[in-house]
Amino acid sequence: MKGFTLWFTGLPCSGKTTLAREVEGIMLERGVRVEVLDGDEIRENLSKGLTFSREDRNTNIRRIGWVSKLLARNGVVCIVAAVSPYRDIRREVREWHERFIQVYLRAPLEVLKKRDVKGMYKKAMAGEIKNFTGISDPYEEPENAEVVIDTDLDTVEISVDRVIRTLEMIDYIPHGETVGDYSEEEEAKIKARLKDLGYI
Amino acid sequence: MKGFTLWFTGLPCSGKTTLAREVEGIMLERGVRVEVLDGDEIRENLSKGLTFSREDRNTNIRRIGWVSKLLARNGVVCIVAAVSPYRDIRREVREWHERFIQVYLRAPLEVLKKRDVKGMYKKAMAGEIKNFTGISDPYEEPENAEVVIDTDLDTVEISVDRVIRTLEMIDYIPHGETVGDYSEEEEAKIKARLKDLGYI
Repeated sequence: MKGFTLWFTGLPCSGKTTLAREVEGIMLERGVRVEVLDGDEIRENLSKGLTFSREDRNTNIRRIGWVSKLLARNGVVCIVAAVSPYRDIRREVREWHERFIQVYLRAPLEVLKKRDVKGMYKKAMAGEIKNFTGISDPYEEPENAEVVIDTDLDTVEISVDRVIRTLEMIDYIPHGETVGDYSEEEEAKIKARLKDLGYI
Repeated sequence: MKGFTLWFTGLPCSGKTTLAREVEGIMLERGVRVEVLDGDEIRENLSKGLTFSREDRNTNIRRIGWVSKLLARNGVVCIVAAVSPYRDIRREVREWHERFIQVYLRAPLEVLKKRDVKGMYKKAMAGEIKNFTGISDPYEEPENAEVVIDTDLDTVEISVDRVIRTLEMIDYIPHGETVGDYSEEEEAKIKARLKDLGYI
Protein backbone atom coordinates (compact mmCIF):
# COMPACT_ATOMS: atom_id res chain seq x y z
CA MET A 1 0.00 0.00 0.00
CA LYS A 2 1.18 3.55 -0.73
CA GLY A 3 1.55 5.79 2.26
CA PHE A 4 0.05 9.23 2.71
CA THR A 5 -0.35 11.95 5.29
CA LEU A 6 -3.69 12.61 6.92
CA TRP A 7 -3.48 16.07 8.43
CA PHE A 8 -5.98 17.22 11.05
CA THR A 9 -6.08 20.99 11.48
CA GLY A 10 -8.33 23.09 13.69
CA LEU A 11 -8.52 25.29 16.75
CA PRO A 12 -7.49 24.02 20.19
CA CYS A 13 -10.10 21.60 21.63
CA SER A 14 -11.62 20.93 18.21
CA GLY A 15 -10.97 17.21 18.67
CA LYS A 16 -7.90 16.63 16.52
CA THR A 17 -6.18 14.16 18.81
CA THR A 18 -9.41 12.29 19.59
CA LEU A 19 -10.25 11.78 15.92
CA ALA A 20 -6.65 11.00 15.02
CA ARG A 21 -6.58 8.20 17.59
CA GLU A 22 -9.95 6.80 16.48
CA VAL A 23 -8.84 6.75 12.86
CA GLU A 24 -5.53 5.18 13.89
CA GLY A 25 -7.45 2.36 15.57
CA ILE A 26 -9.35 1.56 12.38
CA MET A 27 -6.16 1.63 10.33
CA LEU A 28 -4.56 -0.84 12.72
CA GLU A 29 -7.59 -3.15 12.48
CA ARG A 30 -7.14 -3.15 8.72
CA GLY A 31 -3.47 -4.00 8.96
CA VAL A 32 -2.26 -0.62 7.77
CA ARG A 33 1.06 0.75 9.03
CA VAL A 34 0.20 3.95 10.85
CA GLU A 35 1.89 6.59 13.01
CA VAL A 36 0.26 9.51 14.80
CA LEU A 37 2.29 12.70 15.10
CA ASP A 38 0.58 14.73 17.73
CA GLY A 39 1.33 18.44 18.04
CA ASP A 40 2.08 18.28 21.75
CA GLU A 41 4.30 15.24 21.44
CA ILE A 42 6.21 16.87 18.58
CA ARG A 43 6.81 20.00 20.63
CA GLU A 44 8.46 17.71 23.19
CA ASN A 45 10.47 15.56 20.79
CA LEU A 46 11.39 17.83 17.92
CA SER A 47 10.68 21.41 18.86
CA LYS A 48 11.50 22.05 22.48
CA GLY A 49 12.34 25.71 22.95
CA LEU A 50 10.22 26.99 20.09
CA THR A 51 7.66 29.66 21.00
CA PHE A 52 4.21 30.20 19.53
CA SER A 53 5.24 33.12 17.35
CA ARG A 54 4.26 32.82 13.72
CA GLU A 55 7.84 32.03 12.74
CA ASP A 56 8.32 29.36 15.39
CA ARG A 57 4.94 27.81 14.68
CA ASN A 58 5.92 27.54 11.04
CA THR A 59 9.23 25.95 11.96
CA ASN A 60 7.35 23.43 14.08
CA ILE A 61 4.92 22.63 11.28
CA ARG A 62 7.77 22.26 8.78
CA ARG A 63 9.42 19.71 11.09
CA ILE A 64 6.20 17.73 11.44
CA GLY A 65 5.72 17.93 7.68
CA TRP A 66 9.25 16.76 7.00
CA VAL A 67 8.85 13.71 9.22
CA SER A 68 5.39 12.92 7.83
CA LYS A 69 6.81 13.10 4.30
CA LEU A 70 9.51 10.55 5.21
CA LEU A 71 6.95 8.19 6.72
CA ALA A 72 4.38 8.62 3.95
CA ARG A 73 6.86 7.92 1.16
CA ASN A 74 7.79 4.70 2.93
CA GLY A 75 4.31 3.27 2.90
CA VAL A 76 3.12 4.57 6.26
CA VAL A 77 -0.16 6.37 6.92
CA CYS A 78 1.05 9.34 8.92
CA ILE A 79 -1.72 11.00 10.88
CA VAL A 80 -0.90 14.51 12.05
CA ALA A 81 -2.90 16.34 14.71
CA ALA A 82 -1.72 19.93 14.92
CA VAL A 83 -3.45 23.32 15.15
CA SER A 84 -1.38 24.46 12.13
CA PRO A 85 -3.16 27.82 11.87
CA TYR A 86 -1.40 29.30 8.83
CA ARG A 87 -2.55 28.57 5.32
CA ASP A 88 0.72 29.18 3.49
CA ILE A 89 2.68 26.72 5.59
CA ARG A 90 -0.03 24.06 5.34
CA ARG A 91 0.14 24.49 1.57
CA GLU A 92 3.93 24.23 1.59
CA VAL A 93 3.83 20.98 3.55
CA ARG A 94 1.15 19.58 1.25
CA GLU A 95 3.41 20.26 -1.71
CA TRP A 96 6.17 18.11 -0.22
CA HIS A 97 3.85 15.13 -0.36
CA GLU A 98 2.73 12.88 -3.14
CA ARG A 99 -0.45 12.06 -1.20
CA PHE A 100 -1.87 14.45 1.36
CA ILE A 101 -5.37 14.58 2.81
CA GLN A 102 -6.44 17.46 4.97
CA VAL A 103 -9.21 17.22 7.54
CA TYR A 104 -10.52 20.51 8.85
CA LEU A 105 -12.23 20.36 12.23
CA ARG A 106 -14.52 23.36 12.21
CA ALA A 107 -16.25 24.55 15.36
CA PRO A 108 -17.63 27.85 16.61
CA LEU A 109 -15.30 29.49 19.08
CA GLU A 110 -18.09 29.69 21.66
CA VAL A 111 -18.42 25.91 21.66
CA LEU A 112 -14.69 25.41 22.07
CA LYS A 113 -14.51 27.89 24.92
CA LYS A 114 -17.15 25.83 26.71
CA ARG A 115 -15.37 22.55 25.96
CA ASP A 116 -11.98 23.88 27.14
CA VAL A 117 -10.73 20.48 28.33
CA LYS A 118 -7.43 21.73 29.74
CA GLY A 119 -8.60 25.17 30.84
CA MET A 120 -6.44 26.77 28.16
CA TYR A 121 -9.08 29.07 26.70
CA LYS A 122 -9.80 30.41 30.15
CA LYS A 123 -6.13 31.20 30.70
CA ALA A 124 -5.80 32.70 27.23
CA MET A 125 -8.83 34.95 27.76
CA ALA A 126 -7.38 36.06 31.08
CA GLY A 127 -4.19 37.00 29.23
CA GLU A 128 -2.14 34.31 30.97
CA ILE A 129 -1.25 32.54 27.70
CA LYS A 130 0.05 34.60 24.80
CA ASN A 131 -0.35 33.70 21.13
CA PHE A 132 -3.27 31.39 21.75
CA THR A 133 -4.94 30.44 18.48
CA GLY A 134 -8.53 31.65 18.34
CA ILE A 135 -8.07 34.17 21.15
CA SER A 136 -4.90 36.16 20.63
CA ASP A 137 -3.59 34.52 17.47
CA PRO A 138 -5.30 34.01 14.10
CA TYR A 139 -6.56 30.78 12.57
CA GLU A 140 -6.77 30.79 8.79
CA GLU A 141 -9.46 28.40 7.62
CA PRO A 142 -8.50 25.85 4.97
CA GLU A 143 -10.08 26.35 1.57
CA ASN A 144 -9.49 22.95 0.03
CA ALA A 145 -9.68 20.49 2.88
CA GLU A 146 -10.66 17.07 1.58
CA VAL A 147 -12.82 16.52 4.66
CA VAL A 148 -14.63 19.15 6.69
CA ILE A 149 -16.15 18.21 10.02
CA ASP A 150 -18.41 20.38 12.13
CA THR A 151 -17.37 19.10 15.48
CA ASP A 152 -20.27 20.83 17.23
CA LEU A 153 -22.78 18.98 15.04
CA ASP A 154 -21.14 15.77 13.79
CA THR A 155 -20.61 13.02 16.33
CA VAL A 156 -17.20 11.40 16.70
CA GLU A 157 -18.65 8.30 15.07
CA ILE A 158 -19.91 10.08 11.96
CA SER A 159 -16.71 12.12 11.77
CA VAL A 160 -14.54 9.01 11.77
CA ASP A 161 -16.83 7.40 9.19
CA ARG A 162 -16.51 10.41 6.94
CA VAL A 163 -12.71 10.34 7.06
CA ILE A 164 -12.57 6.58 6.48
CA ARG A 165 -15.11 6.64 3.64
CA THR A 166 -13.21 9.46 1.96
CA LEU A 167 -10.01 7.43 2.08
CA GLU A 168 -11.78 4.31 0.82
CA MET A 169 -13.41 6.12 -2.10
CA ILE A 170 -10.05 7.24 -3.45
CA ASP A 171 -8.52 3.83 -2.70
CA TYR A 172 -5.96 5.15 -0.24
CA ILE A 173 -6.83 2.41 2.28
CA PRO A 174 -8.28 -1.10 2.03
CA HIS A 175 -12.07 -1.16 2.24
CA GLY A 176 -13.69 -2.46 5.39
CA GLU A 177 -16.96 -2.55 7.22
CA THR A 178 -18.47 0.85 7.71
CA VAL A 179 -18.60 1.84 11.32
CA GLY A 180 -21.84 3.08 12.87
CA ASP A 181 -24.77 4.63 11.02
CA TYR A 182 -24.03 5.89 7.63
CA SER A 183 -26.55 7.54 5.30
CA GLU A 184 -26.78 7.77 1.53
CA GLU A 185 -26.89 11.50 1.94
CA GLU A 186 -23.56 11.45 3.72
CA GLU A 187 -22.10 9.22 0.99
CA ALA A 188 -23.32 11.65 -1.69
CA LYS A 189 -21.77 14.60 0.13
CA ILE A 190 -18.37 12.91 0.31
CA LYS A 191 -18.53 12.02 -3.38
CA ALA A 192 -19.43 15.58 -4.31
CA ARG A 193 -16.53 16.95 -2.30
CA LEU A 194 -14.04 14.54 -3.89
CA LYS A 195 -15.37 15.38 -7.36
CA ASP A 196 -14.98 19.09 -6.68
CA LEU A 197 -11.37 18.53 -5.73
CA GLY A 198 -10.67 16.36 -8.77
CA TYR A 199 -10.03 13.09 -6.96
CA ILE A 200 -12.80 11.10 -8.64
CA MET B 1 11.09 -7.20 6.30
CA LYS B 2 11.61 -5.66 9.73
CA GLY B 3 13.18 -2.24 9.78
CA PHE B 4 16.23 -1.19 11.75
CA THR B 5 18.55 1.74 12.22
CA LEU B 6 22.10 1.64 10.91
CA TRP B 7 23.99 4.35 12.72
CA PHE B 8 27.34 5.64 11.42
CA THR B 9 29.36 7.50 14.02
CA GLY B 10 32.82 8.99 13.73
CA LEU B 11 34.85 12.17 13.58
CA PRO B 12 34.30 14.76 10.85
CA CYS B 13 35.68 13.57 7.48
CA SER B 14 35.74 9.93 8.58
CA GLY B 15 33.50 9.03 5.63
CA LYS B 16 30.08 8.63 7.26
CA THR B 17 28.06 10.18 4.45
CA THR B 18 30.07 8.42 1.73
CA LEU B 19 29.55 4.98 3.26
CA ALA B 20 25.92 5.71 4.14
CA ARG B 21 25.19 6.53 0.50
CA GLU B 22 27.02 3.46 -0.78
CA VAL B 23 25.12 1.19 1.59
CA GLU B 24 21.86 2.94 0.65
CA GLY B 25 22.55 2.11 -3.01
CA ILE B 26 22.91 -1.60 -2.23
CA MET B 27 19.73 -1.58 -0.15
CA LEU B 28 17.83 -0.01 -3.04
CA GLU B 29 19.19 -2.65 -5.44
CA ARG B 30 17.81 -5.31 -3.10
CA GLY B 31 14.39 -3.68 -2.97
CA VAL B 32 14.71 -2.59 0.64
CA ARG B 33 12.93 0.59 1.81
CA VAL B 34 15.68 2.91 2.97
CA GLU B 35 16.12 6.50 4.17
CA VAL B 36 19.35 8.29 4.93
CA LEU B 37 19.30 10.85 7.72
CA ASP B 38 22.42 12.89 7.28
CA GLY B 39 23.66 15.04 10.13
CA ASP B 40 23.94 18.18 8.03
CA GLU B 41 20.51 17.73 6.46
CA ILE B 42 18.97 17.17 9.89
CA ARG B 43 20.53 20.36 11.23
CA GLU B 44 18.71 22.16 8.42
CA ASN B 45 15.36 20.40 8.71
CA LEU B 46 14.94 19.59 12.40
CA SER B 47 17.52 21.48 14.39
CA LYS B 48 18.09 24.92 12.95
CA GLY B 49 19.29 27.24 15.72
CA LEU B 50 20.94 24.55 17.81
CA THR B 51 24.59 25.11 18.66
CA PHE B 52 27.37 22.54 19.03
CA SER B 53 27.36 22.61 22.83
CA ARG B 54 27.08 19.21 24.48
CA GLU B 55 23.43 19.87 25.37
CA ASP B 56 22.43 21.02 21.91
CA ARG B 57 24.31 18.19 20.25
CA ASN B 58 22.41 15.74 22.43
CA THR B 59 19.10 17.40 21.53
CA ASN B 60 20.02 17.05 17.88
CA ILE B 61 20.92 13.39 18.28
CA ARG B 62 17.70 12.70 20.19
CA ARG B 63 15.70 14.20 17.32
CA ILE B 64 17.52 12.08 14.77
CA GLY B 65 17.03 9.04 17.00
CA TRP B 66 13.34 9.74 17.43
CA VAL B 67 12.78 9.96 13.67
CA SER B 68 14.92 6.89 12.99
CA LYS B 69 12.89 4.94 15.55
CA LEU B 70 9.63 5.88 13.78
CA LEU B 71 11.02 4.81 10.43
CA ALA B 72 12.64 1.61 11.72
CA ARG B 73 9.52 0.37 13.45
CA ASN B 74 7.64 0.84 10.19
CA GLY B 75 9.84 -1.49 8.20
CA VAL B 76 12.34 1.05 6.90
CA VAL B 77 16.11 0.74 7.04
CA CYS B 78 17.07 4.09 8.46
CA ILE B 79 20.71 4.96 7.86
CA VAL B 80 22.05 7.73 10.07
CA ALA B 81 25.31 9.56 9.39
CA ALA B 82 26.11 11.80 12.32
CA VAL B 83 29.27 12.58 14.32
CA SER B 84 27.29 11.76 17.53
CA PRO B 85 30.34 12.09 19.78
CA TYR B 86 28.79 11.23 23.16
CA ARG B 87 28.47 7.68 24.36
CA ASP B 88 25.54 8.13 26.75
CA ILE B 89 23.27 9.66 24.15
CA ARG B 90 24.19 7.04 21.55
CA ARG B 91 23.26 4.41 24.14
CA GLU B 92 19.97 6.16 24.91
CA VAL B 93 18.99 6.26 21.25
CA ARG B 94 19.95 2.59 20.84
CA GLU B 95 17.61 1.70 23.68
CA TRP B 96 14.65 3.29 21.88
CA HIS B 97 15.12 0.79 19.07
CA GLU B 98 14.22 -2.82 18.71
CA ARG B 99 16.99 -3.22 16.12
CA PHE B 100 20.00 -0.96 16.06
CA ILE B 101 23.36 -1.48 14.40
CA GLN B 102 26.23 0.86 15.04
CA VAL B 103 29.10 1.38 12.64
CA TYR B 104 32.14 3.14 14.03
CA LEU B 105 34.38 4.81 11.50
CA ARG B 106 37.74 4.95 13.21
CA ALA B 107 40.58 7.02 11.84
CA PRO B 108 43.69 8.71 13.23
CA LEU B 109 43.16 12.42 13.65
CA GLU B 110 46.26 13.12 11.56
CA VAL B 111 44.71 11.33 8.59
CA LEU B 112 41.47 13.27 8.93
CA LYS B 113 43.27 16.58 9.18
CA LYS B 114 44.96 15.80 5.89
CA ARG B 115 41.69 14.72 4.28
CA ASP B 116 39.80 17.82 5.48
CA VAL B 117 37.42 17.90 2.52
CA LYS B 118 35.66 21.13 3.49
CA GLY B 119 38.60 22.83 5.18
CA MET B 120 36.85 22.53 8.55
CA TYR B 121 39.79 21.09 10.48
CA LYS B 122 41.96 23.95 9.28
CA LYS B 123 39.43 26.47 10.53
CA ALA B 124 38.96 24.62 13.81
CA MET B 125 42.71 24.50 14.41
CA ALA B 126 42.92 28.22 13.70
CA GLY B 127 40.22 28.72 16.34
CA GLU B 128 37.66 29.92 13.78
CA ILE B 129 35.20 27.13 14.62
CA LYS B 130 34.35 26.42 18.22
CA ASN B 131 33.28 23.03 19.59
CA PHE B 132 34.76 21.11 16.70
CA THR B 133 34.82 17.40 17.45
CA GLY B 134 38.38 16.04 17.52
CA ILE B 135 39.96 19.48 17.93
CA SER B 136 38.13 21.48 20.58
CA ASP B 137 35.41 18.99 21.53
CA PRO B 138 35.71 15.36 22.67
CA TYR B 139 34.80 12.22 20.75
CA GLU B 140 33.97 9.23 22.93
CA GLU B 141 34.76 6.03 21.09
CA PRO B 142 32.01 3.39 20.94
CA GLU B 143 32.69 0.22 22.92
CA ASN B 144 30.13 -2.09 21.38
CA ALA B 145 29.84 -1.04 17.77
CA GLU B 146 28.65 -3.95 15.65
CA VAL B 147 31.00 -2.87 12.87
CA VAL B 148 34.32 -1.10 13.21
CA ILE B 149 36.02 0.31 10.16
CA ASP B 150 39.52 1.73 9.98
CA THR B 151 38.92 4.27 7.30
CA ASP B 152 42.62 4.92 6.85
CA LEU B 153 43.25 1.23 6.07
CA ASP B 154 40.00 -0.27 4.76
CA THR B 155 38.89 0.76 1.30
CA VAL B 156 35.37 2.03 0.72
CA GLU B 157 34.63 -1.25 -1.06
CA ILE B 158 35.73 -3.47 1.80
CA SER B 159 33.98 -1.20 4.31
CA VAL B 160 30.68 -1.45 2.48
CA ASP B 161 31.14 -5.22 2.17
CA ARG B 162 31.72 -5.51 5.89
CA VAL B 163 28.55 -3.61 6.73
CA ILE B 164 26.46 -5.56 4.24
CA ARG B 165 27.88 -8.95 5.30
CA THR B 166 27.20 -8.12 8.94
CA LEU B 167 23.57 -7.33 8.14
CA GLU B 168 23.22 -10.46 6.04
CA MET B 169 24.68 -12.72 8.71
CA ILE B 170 22.06 -11.66 11.23
CA ASP B 171 19.33 -11.76 8.57
CA TYR B 172 18.49 -8.10 8.81
CA ILE B 173 18.55 -7.74 5.01
CA PRO B 174 17.99 -10.12 2.09
CA HIS B 175 21.17 -11.82 0.93
CA GLY B 176 22.74 -10.74 -2.34
CA GLU B 177 25.91 -10.98 -4.33
CA THR B 178 28.95 -9.89 -2.41
CA VAL B 179 30.49 -6.78 -3.82
CA GLY B 180 34.19 -6.66 -4.64
CA ASP B 181 36.90 -8.82 -3.11
CA TYR B 182 36.01 -10.53 0.07
CA SER B 183 38.31 -12.83 2.03
CA GLU B 184 37.63 -15.75 4.37
CA GLU B 185 39.64 -13.92 6.96
CA GLU B 186 37.28 -10.95 6.74
CA GLU B 187 34.27 -13.26 7.02
CA ALA B 188 35.74 -14.89 10.12
CA LYS B 189 36.36 -11.50 11.71
CA ILE B 190 32.75 -10.43 11.21
CA LYS B 191 31.49 -13.70 12.65
CA ALA B 192 33.71 -13.35 15.70
CA ARG B 193 32.48 -9.83 16.31
CA LEU B 194 28.82 -10.85 16.06
CA LYS B 195 29.43 -13.79 18.37
CA ASP B 196 31.08 -11.52 20.92
CA LEU B 197 28.05 -9.28 20.87
CA GLY B 198 25.60 -12.18 21.19
CA TYR B 199 23.97 -11.86 17.78
CA ILE B 200 24.89 -15.32 16.54
